[in-house]
Amino acid sequence: PTAALCEAYAQVVGRDGKASLQYTVPDGEPRLREHVSARLSQQGTRCTAASILMLQGSQQGLDLMGKLMIDRGDVIITERPTFLGAPLAFNPFEPRYRSVRMDADGMDMGHLETVLKQDPGAKFIYTVHDFQNPTGTTLSETRRKELLALANRFDVLVLEDTAYREVRFSGTSPPTLKSLDTEGRVVLLGSFSKILSPGMRLGYLLASDEIIAKAGLLKLAADTQVSTVNMLAACSYLEQNDINGHIEILRSAYRRKKNLMLGLIRQHFPQEVIATDPEGGLFTWLTFPASIDTENVMRTQALPVAKVAYVPGASFFTETPEHNHARFNYSGQSDERIEQGMLALAKVLKSELARKA
Amino acid sequence: PTAALCEAYAQVVGRDGKASLQYTVPDGEPRLREHVSARLSQQGTRCTAASILMLQGSQQGLDLMGKLMIDRGDVIITERPTFLGAPLAFNPFEPRYRSVRMDADGMDMGHLETVLKQDPGAKFIYTVHDFQNPTGTTLSETRRKELLALANRFDVLVLEDTAYREVRFSGTSPPTLKSLDTEGRVVLLGSFSKILSPGMRLGYLLASDEIIAKAGLLKLAADTQVSTVNMLAACSYLEQNDINGHIEILRSAYRRKKNLMLGLIRQHFPQEVIATDPEGGLFTWLTFPASIDTENVMRTQALPVAKVAYVPGASFFTETPEHNHARFNYSGQSDERIEQGMLALAKVLKSELARKA
Repeated sequence: PTAALCEAYAQVVGRDGKASLQYTVPDGEPRLREHVSARLSQQGTRCTAASILMLQGSQQGLDLMGKLMIDRGDVIITERPTFLGAPLAFNPFEPRYRSVRMDADGMDMGHLETVLKQDPGAKFIYTVHDFQNPTGTTLSETRRKELLALANRFDVLVLEDTAYREVRFSGTSPPTLKSLDTEGRVVLLGSFSKILSPGMRLGYLLASDEIIAKAGLLKLAADTQVSTVNMLAACSYLEQNDINGHIEILRSAYRRKKNLMLGLIRQHFPQEVIATDPEGGLFTWLTFPASIDTENVMRTQALPVAKVAYVPGASFFTETPEHNHARFNYSGQSDERIEQGMLALAKVLKSELARKA
Repeated sequence: PTAALCEAYAQVVGRDGKASLQYTVPDGEPRLREHVSARLSQQGTRCTAASILMLQGSQQGLDLMGKLMIDRGDVIITERPTFLGAPLAFNPFEPRYRSVRMDADGMDMGHLETVLKQDPGAKFIYTVHDFQNPTGTTLSETRRKELLALANRFDVLVLEDTAYREVRFSGTSPPTLKSLDTEGRVVLLGSFSKILSPGMRLGYLLASDEIIAKAGLLKLAADTQVSTVNMLAACSYLEQNDINGHIEILRSAYRRKKNLMLGLIRQHFPQEVIATDPEGGLFTWLTFPASIDTENVMRTQALPVAKVAYVPGASFFTETPEHNHARFNYSGQSDERIEQGMLALAKVLKSELARKA
């Protein structure tokens, strides 16, 4: 919402420049933490501002939790595949990874139990449970309860990343793990990047008092605080605009683009190619026949011939990479370019699959 | 410069909202890196934009260099005392510290040599060489050359923190260590916090290609990037305003406040109390008789009776803390409040010293 944010910046720097250009408290502008906790509470995750730590985007939460929890060789459990920013943030602390199989309802709880039995000292389970990046999958409510029961039983912390949660095309999301948490073992990461602006770098962490205190000290050590200007501009925007109305516009636009892209894939792509149908978020995940290496196809066909870029799937695996997947983003391009791109890609994929057959 | 920054934000969000509210490249907005490298080059530290990594304040450079360099138990060499944000950032990586004695010309090079002989595997030397936080001391040009010769001889990296460098009251600063570096072993940290705004959280790191590549990957992992809005607002400010003119105003204001505070200390404080006379920056460092515990004096006298807060010196030591120092900041208060505070403090210090005598 460019015009409204322009107004917000003009207000906070113009009328209140002395405060907005100065330092504030390390945990983040108290007014913004109030807004965040009020929104979370309204949406069913009851909390107070004191339990919120503002972050330089939710990516920073991955870094801080890695720093807080991981000693070299510790086991971290992720989905298979998982958001690639997570291992990127955790790797400097040198963990080992175990990853859990997924189906259309998210992580397979039987497999999670097996993994926890094999590595009962695992430091945390990392999950992106709403319209996961990269698969677009949502963890069902039943499984959320099972996941938390397993976490309680094995005494393991859970890191839930809700970055895409509010970009839901219809209906309501299953409850957050934090809202089901009775033992203070869930850490929730949230973000304004997908609902307001990624360039403002505003995210947050909700956790127990004990973890907030430790993560807050690490945040202070890492970069002092989030930008005061950006936090106050977000406050001003939230106080003078209807962010839920803005999110409705995003939801409707992304839903249309998702339907457009999936329609084109179903109609024009070779039948062997399977795409997930997400209930929200920005991504669909394509699975090709095992003989197809999507990195190779992108380099030799998609980019030079079809002029389409996607993210080859191999980089989303923390254990053995699978090479026959791709993440497609439908949120970033115009309808026309989505149509052009999918048609051009369908053509090169058909000849690639015919060649391999 | 509130009005000019207000205009800058209005421009970048208003006219160029699409770019400023979106992601940019992880190393930071190329235009801003050009401005930074041009300023550094003009000031004698020749470099290109490709050698600059934008940071969430220069504090983030301490975190990234800690993450890159420190394995548990590694030795880090600091000044004695040192900026307390440095051990705060390094501590999560569990180093051991050695600290080097200082006098009016900064680190004692004989002592640095002794320390390097005792710990030849030290990972880096951290120095705030211009108007150091907390002592206000500047490392002389001769010693800068000696420091670099020692670093070359012992093959140790140098981390130079220039956060206060441009806030010089008169004359010109000795060259940066980076400008004297022929072996790519100096990493320079810089900041816009003291010359533009701390609330924008803009700092940078200048280093060799090899270190920039590694630190850049860690920056991406830590929080994706610095806020695009803030980087573009800084560009707009720098392109349409005379930042050197603004810095002149700061220099002159801080010089006046420094002279005011030091004059009051000399005139009214007990003669046993010694204060450094910095050539720039924000701080003077007071040394009291050894019998005085400045933490205790603050809690029992300065805060409740004189209504003055300072930072007790003990927290600035990475080895054995010394309890008879205090860091006074002259930049943040009005002349009237500085006068009131120093007079009230002089009174309680006199009675405290009389009581101890």
